[in-house]
Amino acid sequence: VTRIVCPPTATVIADLAANRRMAEQAIRRAAGAGADIVLLPELATSGYVFTGPAEARSVAVGIEHPLFQEWSVAAGKATVVGGFCELGDDGRLYNSAAVVDRTGVRVVYRKTHLWGLEKLIFTPGSRPPPIVETASGRVGLLICYDLEFPEVTRDLAVRGADLIVAPVNWPLVERPAGERPPETVIAMAAARTNRIGIAIADRSGTERGQVWTGGSAIIDECGWVVADQQGDPEAAVEADLDLRRARRKELGEHNHVLADRRPELYRRVTQA
Amino acid sequence: VTRIVCPPTATVIADLAANRRMAEQAIRRAAGAGADIVLLPELATSGYVFTGPAEARSVAVGIEHPLFQEWSVAAGKATVVGGFCELGDDGRLYNSAAVVDRTGVRVVYRKTHLWGLEKLIFTPGSRPPPIVETASGRVGLLICYDLEFPEVTRDLAVRGADLIVAPVNWPLVERPAGERPPETVIAMAAARTNRIGIAIADRSGTERGQVWTGGSAIIDECGWVVADQQGDPEAAVEADLDLRRARRKELGEHNHVLADRRPELYRRVTQA
Repeated sequence: VTRIVCPPTATVIADLAANRRMAEQAIRRAAGAGADIVLLPELATSGYVFTGPAEARSVAVGIEHPLFQEWSVAAGKATVVGGFCELGDDGRLYNSAAVVDRTGVRVVYRKTHLWGLEKLIFTPGSRPPPIVETASGRVGLLICYDLEFPEVTRDLAVRGADLIVAPVNWPLVERPAGERPPETVIAMAAARTNRIGIAIADRSGTERGQVWTGGSAIIDECGWVVADQQGDPEAAVEADLDLRRARRKELGEHNHVLADRRPELYRRVTQA
Repeated sequence: VTRIVCPPTATVIADLAANRRMAEQAIRRAAGAGADIVLLPELATSGYVFTGPAEARSVAVGIEHPLFQEWSVAAGKATVVGGFCELGDDGRLYNSAAVVDRTGVRVVYRKTHLWGLEKLIFTPGSRPPPIVETASGRVGLLICYDLEFPEVTRDLAVRGADLIVAPVNWPLVERPAGERPPETVIAMAAARTNRIGIAIADRSGTERGQVWTGGSAIIDECGWVVADQQGDPEAAVEADLDLRRARRKELGEHNHVLADRRPELYRRVTQA
C-alpha cells in the first residue's frame, strides 16, 4: 500500500522564506513518519491572494531554485508534490506544481485551467497534466480547477495513472448544511467513474479575507472519502491506498469503466 | 419554474398489462397535480430481472403500441419520460426510453451503455442521447449506466440541454454509512460541472431477489439534491427547478464551465 500524507501547512502570502521553512519541515516530518507521497497545496511557496502580478513575480521561482533541493533532501524515500509560483524561462508567471524526489525535480506541470483572477496573473499551461513514474506507481498531477473538468481526470485514467494528486486552494463556497464541499463531490465522482484514487491538499484558514475550505482529502478508487480535513487547519490528512486497484477497471463480469465508453457518440466533447 | 415529478411505481416483472395500468395511473395523478415533467424508471413497462431474452421479448413493444397513446392522454399538458422494453423494427430488443406528450411520442432513445446481463438481452443503441424541445425547455434523455460516463452528460450540456432526465434501475450496492448512493454522487458532480439540473427516476423494493436502491432524486444546476427518495418506495419525489439557470454557464466574472475547457489537451478522451 501507499501512504499518502497531506500535512498541515500555514502558508504566508508573499513570504518565500517563511514558506520554504514551512514546506521543508512539513515534508521532513511526513516523510520521517513513513509517508510515501507527501502532498502540499497549490502555490505553497507563495500564497494565493496576490495584490497583482508584481507581487506574484516578487516570489516566483524557477525550477533551478534551491527550495526544490530542500524538498528533495527532506523527502528521503518519499515523493513530494507541491504547488509553486513559477517564473518561466520565458519570463512569464505560471501556477505550477512540481513532483520532487531524492533524485530532484521529476516534472513540473503548469495549470491549464485558470480560476478567477489567476487569469490576470498567470499564463495557462499548454501541456496536459503529466503522469510520473514513482516508487509507488504512476502518479497523475493536476491543479485545483483542473479537477472540475471530467475530461482531465478521464484523460489521466485513459493514459494509465494509478493515482491522481491535486494541490488546490479551494475558496470556501456556500453549501447546504451537512454537505461536503462541492469540489469534493466532483472528486468522488471522478474517482469512481475512473476507478482511481484521488488525493487533494487544500489550504486552511484565511488569507487577506479569503477563507479557505480546508478540504484536504484522500478518496479511494470506489469514490469514497477515506480521510478528510473537514476544515481543521491542524489536521494531517493521511491514508493508505492500494494503488494496484486502479489497474482493475472491471465492474463485475460484464463491464469496464473505460472499455464501455462509446467515443464515437460524444466526439463533440473534445471539439473546440 | 418546471415541476418535475418522479411518482412511486410498482413494476411487476414481465406483466405488461399490470405495468400499463400502473404507469397510466401514475402519469394521470402526477399530471393532474401540476407536474410539467413526469419521469418513470427504466424498463417501466416490463421490469428488469428477466429470465432471459425470451421473457424480455414476450413483453417488448414497438413505438406503435397503444400504451404510448395511454401515456399521451394521461399526460395532459405534461411531458412524460419513461423506460420501456423495445422490440425494434429490426426484430432486436432495446433498453429504450420514450418522451411522450399530448401530441404523441416525441422521441425514442435506445440505451447506448449497457449494464451487466443487459448485454445478453439488448442491442446497444447507435445514436447519442437526444435532446427534445418541450414546453419546459430542452430536455436531454439518457438511461441509467449512461449517467456514469461524464462524456455523456458533458455532451448533452455542450449541445444545449436545459435539463437531463434519467430513467434508471439502480441495483443496491454497498456504501459506507451515511453516504448517498454512489450513482447519486456521480449525478451531483455531473450537474455541477455542467451547470445543469438532473432528474432521476429509480426503482424501489425487490425484484426476483434484486434489491433496488430507491434513488429517485432531483438535483439542481449547482449539484445539490433538492428532493430524493432515500429508498422509500411510497415517496413521490418532486421539485421545482428553474431550467433557465442551466443557460448560464458562467462561474463569477472570469470563468465558464464550457468555455474554460481545453479540448486540445484531452483529445484522447474521445479517441477509440
